[in-house]
Order: sequence, then structure tokens, then C-alpha cells
Amino acid sequence: MTSYFKSIDTLASFSDDRAFKADLFVSGKLFVGLNCFQPGQSQKVHAHSESDKFYLVLSGKARMVVGDETQEVGGGTVVWAPADVPHGVPEALEPTVMLVAMAPPPRNISLPAAP
Amino acid sequence: MTSYFKSIDTLASFSDDRAFKADLFVSGKLFVGLNCFQPGQSQKVHAHSESDKFYLVLSGKARMVVGDETQEVGGGTVVWAPADVPHGVPEALEPTVMLVAMAPPPRNISLPAAP
Repeated sequence: MTSYFKSIDTLASFSDDRAFKADLFVSGKLFVGLNCFQPGQSQKVHAHSESDKFYLVLSGKARMVVGDETQEVGGGTVVWAPADVPHGVPEALEPTVMLVAMAPPPRNISLPAAP
Repeated sequence: MTSYFKSIDTLASFSDDRAFKADLFVSGKLFVGLNCFQPGQSQKVHAHSESDKFYLVLSGKARMVVGDETQEVGGGTVVWAPADVPHGVPEALEPTVMLVAMAPPPRNISLPAAP
């Protein structure tokens, strides 16, 4: 049975091979998921042509970039990445968990429909 | 100067009069903000006809409802509230901070444009 409630603690995970991603919920309008980085792992700077996005750093520390701003961020930082603005995670400095949300969703996400 | 980075710690606040809200970022597609509750405060169960929404409980404890599900939730719980599904916070049990995101945004939000 699908639920409207999900726990990040049970869904966050780390991989030594690459940054770990988990998809939590998705609809035609909105996606929410997790990005988890081991120290040294990164997310290439990229841009979405149609979607606005934000990250919320939940724990850890990472160097993040949006447009011409670069900051070392930790838990409690919200990072806004509007459509067409390059953004990414050049380097995680600690094991780092981020919530990420995007509207409209990326096209390659397919989850069971929310209940 | 507007920044792509904002700290929740500096924006979260509590009011004795009513639940506190802060708007972090908004675009035509996506809104992200904070809802902060003192114990005993609530958010009336309501529905959005066009927008999907989620909450992420960051700290505290609250009783939340979506559709026919009610749960007592704490930090790290993501709560999905699709368009047309009634949802709300019948009662905060501790001082509780939630991130909330909605796509498309509520109509009454007007923030300075993101940079």
C-alpha cells in the first residue's frame, strides 16, 4: 500500500560508486527526492531548460554552485536553482544528504502513482 | 542583493498568536517556504484544486492528516498532499518546523524575483 508519508531516514543511503538518488514522490507537476553524497562525490553542474528546482541540505557539508554563486553549505540551507541557471555540487566535503524538489519533474522519473 | 542560498535557521520563527509562515523562494512553477507551529497550534485541513504539495518536517512533532491517513510525525518525515486531497496539521505536539513546497505556487505569494 502506498502512503502519503515517507521517512527520509529509511530511504537515504550512500554508495561508494556514485552519488545515491532516491525518488520519494512524483506527479505531473512536482517531484521530490533525495541526493546523498559521500565525501569527494559530486553532481556535475547542469541546467534544466523548463524546470525550477531547489535543494535542502539536511546533513553534512558540500560545496554547491548556482549561477555565479558558490557556497559551502550544511544542514538547513535551501538552495534555489531556477530553470536555465547552471547548478550542481562540485564536491561533498562530508557525507551529505539533500532533499531535492523540481517542478515540473524530470522526464526520466516514474514512480508508482501517489495514493 | 538576492541570493540563491537561504538558511532556515535565520528564517524560522514562532508566534504565540498563530502558526508562523515564511516564504523562501517562488517562481511561476514552484514555491518553497516554512510553516512553524507552537504546541497546540494547527493548520486547518484544506485542499488545493490545482497544486501538488509536500511538507518535510524538520524538527518537532505534529499530528498531520492527508486524505484518510493521520500520523504523528517528527523530523525527517516527508508528507505528500496531491491536488484535491484534503490535508493539514490538526495539532502540533511540540515546537515544529516544516518546509513546504507547492507546484504551481499559491496565488497569494509575491516575493522579489529570484536572482
